[in-house]
Amino acid sequence: MTTHHFSPTHYHVTLGSHAPALYIADGDTVMTTTVDANGHDASGRVITAEPNPMTGPFFVKGAMPGDTLAVHLDSIMPNRAWGWTRAALAANVVNPEYAQTLPLREIVNWHVDVEKWIAILDAPPRGLENLAIPLAPMLGCFGVAPWDGQAISTVTSAEHGGNMDYNGFVQGVTAYFPVFVPGALFHLGDGHAAQGDGEIVGTGIEISMDVQFTARIIKNKSDLPIRKINTVRGENAEFIFTVGNARPLDQALQIATTEMHQWLTSDYGLDTTGASLLMGQCVRYEVGNVFDPAYTMVCKLPRGYLTRE
Amino acid sequence: MTTHHFSPTHYHVTLGSHAPALYIADGDTVMTTTVDANGHDASGRVITAEPNPMTGPFFVKGAMPGDTLAVHLDSIMPNRAWGWTRAALAANVVNPEYAQTLPLREIVNWHVDVEKWIAILDAPPRGLENLAIPLAPMLGCFGVAPWDGQAISTVTSAEHGGNMDYNGFVQGVTAYFPVFVPGALFHLGDGHAAQGDGEIVGTGIEISMDVQFTARIIKNKSDLPIRKINTVRGENAEFIFTVGNARPLDQALQIATTEMHQWLTSDYGLDTTGASLLMGQCVRYEVGNVFDPAYTMVCKLPRGYLTRE
Amino acid sequence: MTTHHFSPTHYHVTLGSHAPALYIADGDTVMTTTVDANGHDASGRVITAEPNPMTGPFFVKGAMPGDTLAVHLDSIMPNRAWGWTRAALAANVVNPEYAQTLPLREIVNWHVDVEKWIAILDAPPRGLENLAIPLAPMLGCFGVAPWDGQAISTVTSAEHGGNMDYNGFVQGVTAYFPVFVPGALFHLGDGHAAQGDGEIVGTGIEISMDVQFTARIIKNKSDLPIRKINTVRGENAEFIFTVGNARPLDQALQIATTEMHQWLTSDYGLDTTGASLLMGQCVRYEVGNVFDPAYTMVCKLPRGYLTRE
Amino acid sequence: MTTHHFSPTHYHVTLGSHAPALYIADGDTVMTTTVDANGHDASGRVITAEPNPMTGPFFVKGAMPGDTLAVHLDSIMPNRAWGWTRAALAANVVNPEYAQTLPLREIVNWHVDVEKWIAILDAPPRGLENLAIPLAPMLGCFGVAPWDGQAISTVTSAEHGGNMDYNGFVQGVTAYFPVFVPGALFHLGDGHAAQGDGEIVGTGIEISMDVQFTARIIKNKSDLPIRKINTVRGENAEFIFTVGNARPLDQALQIATTEMHQWLTSDYGLDTTGASLLMGQCVRYEVGNVFDPAYTMVCKLPRGYLTRE
Repeated sequence: MTTHHFSPTHYHVTLGSHAPALYIADGDTVMTTTVDANGHDASGRVITAEPNPMTGPFFVKGAMPGDTLAVHLDSIMPNRAWGWTRAALAANVVNPEYAQTLPLREIVNWHVDVEKWIAILDAPPRGLENLAIPLAPMLGCFGVAPWDGQAISTVTSAEHGGNMDYNGFVQGVTAYFPVFVPGALFHLGDGHAAQGDGEIVGTGIEISMDVQFTARIIKNKSDLPIRKINTVRGENAEFIFTVGNARPLDQALQIATTEMHQWLTSDYGLDTTGASLLMGQCVRYEVGNVFDPAYTMVCKLPRGYLTRE
Repeated sequence: MTTHHFSPTHYHVTLGSHAPALYIADGDTVMTTTVDANGHDASGRVITAEPNPMTGPFFVKGAMPGDTLAVHLDSIMPNRAWGWTRAALAANVVNPEYAQTLPLREIVNWHVDVEKWIAILDAPPRGLENLAIPLAPMLGCFGVAPWDGQAISTVTSAEHGGNMDYNGFVQGVTAYFPVFVPGALFHLGDGHAAQGDGEIVGTGIEISMDVQFTARIIKNKSDLPIRKINTVRGENAEFIFTVGNARPLDQALQIATTEMHQWLTSDYGLDTTGASLLMGQCVRYEVGNVFDPAYTMVCKLPRGYLTRE
Repeated sequence: MTTHHFSPTHYHVTLGSHAPALYIADGDTVMTTTVDANGHDASGRVITAEPNPMTGPFFVKGAMPGDTLAVHLDSIMPNRAWGWTRAALAANVVNPEYAQTLPLREIVNWHVDVEKWIAILDAPPRGLENLAIPLAPMLGCFGVAPWDGQAISTVTSAEHGGNMDYNGFVQGVTAYFPVFVPGALFHLGDGHAAQGDGEIVGTGIEISMDVQFTARIIKNKSDLPIRKINTVRGENAEFIFTVGNARPLDQALQIATTEMHQWLTSDYGLDTTGASLLMGQCVRYEVGNVFDPAYTMVCKLPRGYLTRE
Repeated sequence: MTTHHFSPTHYHVTLGSHAPALYIADGDTVMTTTVDANGHDASGRVITAEPNPMTGPFFVKGAMPGDTLAVHLDSIMPNRAWGWTRAALAANVVNPEYAQTLPLREIVNWHVDVEKWIAILDAPPRGLENLAIPLAPMLGCFGVAPWDGQAISTVTSAEHGGNMDYNGFVQGVTAYFPVFVPGALFHLGDGHAAQGDGEIVGTGIEISMDVQFTARIIKNKSDLPIRKINTVRGENAEFIFTVGNARPLDQALQIATTEMHQWLTSDYGLDTTGASLLMGQCVRYEVGNVFDPAYTMVCKLPRGYLTRE
């Protein structure tokens, strides 16, 4: 297994079948950097165009359509001392008439202190003078090239991943993506130092990052290019989870729930009824974003209830 | 403060302006029982008609429209040794085409062991032989009489509460309801020994309960019958939370998010921007039910970020 | 068959199991009046409380749960010379951020000229000086008492009818309602002199009406109290149609589409595939309201494609 | 103005910044052909891969981002004598539990008789022996290259057009598209001999077509690359209309309604209140598709109410 040190020289605002930025082997590790959602790098300069510029894509040698790409997030670390957020709730997350009372969008800056592992407002309004949010660095937008030659904007998400803005994508998590094109073409960016559920102001604490990840191919054992998984999945020491990206939230939930049911019946020795019984009383949902064109809902199960076949 | 021991003699399948079952004073405590969602009591007999028969209503003397009713859930304890759930995911929580592959509804029984504090399937399918779910007894359906003389079925929910099926309504929580009619008319029932998020098989572990609660009136300080709160709220030692009941989930989320923003600006010393900044990076969402006619979304904030004015 | 002349003396703001205002027989005709949505009568006085005060309920002797109530709208005629509308698009019918640019709610008056059969703004803004909308008088809110003893506000709608605000409910149409309680308990009101699709300013041209209708019972031939129809239906010389009342619009459409499929297979000699083939290429949808708590979608089929069995 | 006769040699399954198939000038007319949704041509051979293969793209010389492309549909004519549809309602257009009763997808063929201008089932099920649907040839999927270098699948739709499946896109209509890339890059295909509203079996009567269109550029008069229009618009002799492509249908309706309000205030001499008043009482909605990943809702206004400034 090789560890690659990769310094990006250009970025993409779509996830698509772009020329590979680096070829890596199954099991390789990559240490690289991401700019923030507006294209600011570690030094604070704008070096590329918004929205959510992607580092990559990384071509994983041997990955073929129908396979699954496993990306272990080894490390996600802010590489500068400030981030920014919007300062008003998005119009679509409040009652329509209440939206008429909200101020327009404005940007505020936060001091991101990786020594103390907290984020603090530069100019806190009344009542937030003591607010110190624990850091929980995450990737807001990452994934693979989509099917049928599509190139899909980094403002949205789908089966290939993309702008999911789920605050559970932190270091220590393995994310799984369906592979649609040879090499999978993995893209990443849009780091947040922390983020509430839903990304309801339209941003996390947007920041540039040092990221290390390890990519592994799970081969499709079928001869047919049938996808082993149908949408993004993930796991860590405590949970397995599935990710639905769609609008409305109801549909995102349907996708995540269906994928979990399929996972339990294919890999965890449960039949249809067993999977339903377990999910009915033990499942948990988490909200990724409810701001982007596609919303994100996560369906989780604690590992303690599961026996891998 | 008085403690009332109340044995219900009849039940209601709507929350409405029914004749009071008991008059209580501000601050009084009530010890009573609830039957399960299908009308089975502690002895397992069906003593009243489904769905979700309600104990009550309790008339809280002095409660007037515009006030808020605070109900502290002192104790929620299963009073028999078995519960039941459905055994198939509901058609509306999976992808529409996947629904076509699911079996029809069927009922299974669970042994509910309050000594060991676990629930176990009576006839576990393959892979669930060792499943033992920790109990987390909750009320699925409770609330007050709605506005304008309405009587609303216990299958659904709205601003007055009702069938929210939120697994955070456990003992130790205080729930807040807008008061729409004199006496508030508090109803309760539909106990679950445990329940996954979303109530995605259409039930929790349905069971009869012994319940103790304490009711308190928070007077509207205005001379006008303006409601202090606009939908259900709650809190415990760790969180404050707001509850949106509507379809789709997007709208339930909008209601909960709006109510939290209003709570923070009215009671916690934050202005519009401060409340937005805090919520944007610190809020959490939890899914009540995604099965009933109205879905339920909960918006939570950890108390640690708050300073009561 | 008797024709009743009924002058209402009180009104209801819920559809529910209220004391009958008049008992009528199967096949009887009623001539009566309705006040406007805010309770103004033909003389312009406010005589009862908003919202959408209902005339009735009318107890149709012999109607039993499981039957269908057919209400032929013989005549719907404005009985005064003015109506009112709101003047701004509702916040929920435009893009959330666009809502922030809209003015707040305001009321404007219209001259309703039944001689010329047009409605004209009292104080037209620039560009609408010549606007003369053809009258198309309709009932916005009507229906029967709902199931399980519910009383449901006239601001919303469901299987029992209610505030559907569908501009196809004009004279000459027969509306069908499931019967949930003995006597059906038919309520009506909320007349509009005209209304665009969707009721997107939150009102039609609100006006008091003289209404004549004829009620007929279609007996359930089963011995069981199974409902023959599951939601509101209608027909006129040109179309048959079904009405879905729910949120979001997607669900309203699902309800209407399901009901049409069931109607075609039960009454028009088609099997499941035949009904699907016909609907797929011939169905039309119309939007009732997208303003009220429950939206309304109508599924229509031209009679020309149908052969009654 | 030139008339081009263009025979496609290859097709695209995304709308994107593909190499132009033909360069045309502002005002030119193109006569070309489209294959059906599954890639069958006029002779019935499969000559390219599904879904919805696009003819083009056509580069309109002089079109620049911020301009509007006007495409007049001069003629849309089936060029073979058969089409096909699916035979079962899509699972997502009926109640979730009802979907479980529907058969799986199956294909049936129709005889398309352009002499008699009707479509007839090859093997009609009971009750549809006499079904003869009037032809109303339309384009299901057409539009321009999207923004930010995206390539978006022909199964879905957005601001750039795409798979809208609106049965109002017939000959005689002018469709308007925002221009996102130099040359606009117009694509077309997915012809239907006829189609019900909603495309609720997932297809119209799918058929290959001879198509003639005329393209015209409406220059953005601003110096800035601000789009004059924000989503697809259209008009014919009777109506102007706007098209919202999104999920759920509620959001599609919001987009279409917003765009109509903007059109009326920018081009028809109405202020915000005037546009709202007119729309509130005169607007009509039509459903494009409720099958594809993005649904389509159309907002229409009769020309009779409008005075062009």
